[in-house]
Amino acid sequence: MKYPTGINQTYKISTKNRGMNLEHDINVSNEYYLQNNIAVIYKKPTPINVVKVNDNIITKAYFKTPSTTDYNGLYQGKYIDFEAKETKYEYFPLKNIHSHQLKHLKQIQNHGGIAFIIVRFTTLKQNYLMLINHITGDETRITLEYFKKYGKLITETFNPRLDYLKELKEII
Amino acid sequence: MKYPTGINQTYKISTKNRGMNLEHDINVSNEYYLQNNIAVIYKKPTPINVVKVNDNIITKAYFKTPSTTDYNGLYQGKYIDFEAKETKYEYFPLKNIHSHQLKHLKQIQNHGGIAFIIVRFTTLKQNYLMLINHITGDETRITLEYFKKYGKLITETFNPRLDYLKELKEII
Repeated sequence: MKYPTGINQTYKISTKNRGMNLEHDINVSNEYYLQNNIAVIYKKPTPINVVKVNDNIITKAYFKTPSTTDYNGLYQGKYIDFEAKETKYEYFPLKNIHSHQLKHLKQIQNHGGIAFIIVRFTTLKQNYLMLINHITGDETRITLEYFKKYGKLITETFNPRLDYLKELKEII
Repeated sequence: MKYPTGINQTYKISTKNRGMNLEHDINVSNEYYLQNNIAVIYKKPTPINVVKVNDNIITKAYFKTPSTTDYNGLYQGKYIDFEAKETKYEYFPLKNIHSHQLKHLKQIQNHGGIAFIIVRFTTLKQNYLMLINHITGDETRITLEYFKKYGKLITETFNPRLDYLKELKEII
């Protein structure tokens, strides 16, 4: 079977990067969603405090703590907002998400948006999506069992790499 | 009349910054919306390509062209997305908005979101909000008359500084 150059090239890139992290997998999935007119979801840029600029080159700057989550966008007319994190443990330490990010997700839920987290258990090679209403914010850790009970397992596929909207659709 | 320290301080800051630019006025309006539980709308961080970091201090970085618009968020269960620009002319040069930003706003509209621009005519001291469906993207400039006809004038008030959601509400 012959593919046009473009598709073949995409295949090569995808295979090469397959070992990469959750953020990358979500980004390429979002590109797929955008190109296939399924959703418009972007990762927000990292907030940086620029101190010095010479000739358009930033020579001094600091990373800032983000006020909101990493990802937001639009899916089937609905506002979507989420944070994505990896853990090597068989539980998710809630301190991995800033308290103001959790507060933000709760606000989104209260205003009629869809707020959730995506957690990758790197050792188990499993990804879960869980709506924010299942998290109080007072937990120190969330167990894998809890994700299995209240979350949705996201199976990794070829394209989109991480079809989290398919799982989201079933619970909203 | 006596104010608690916090409120008094806010008043002082507001007065001092009154001459500042459109971005600032939108940011403080968004803070007002958030604090009063009206909407959750944030400015996205400026995208920066970080090249060198020493001890958490960025020592070399470049500004990147943004892929999307500056502002998005959630208002009454609806996805909101917009770009804000100033012009000193009595028309708005469309090149002030990147073509991929216009494309992004059109995509948002097609996916059931609310997409618009806010333009400040600095010489006239007037601000207009206009939904993206009134812009084809082929215009080189949009006249003030066109904004008057198809947009909504946003009157500057004390708090929120720029109550653009009040105007938006009337046209959606």
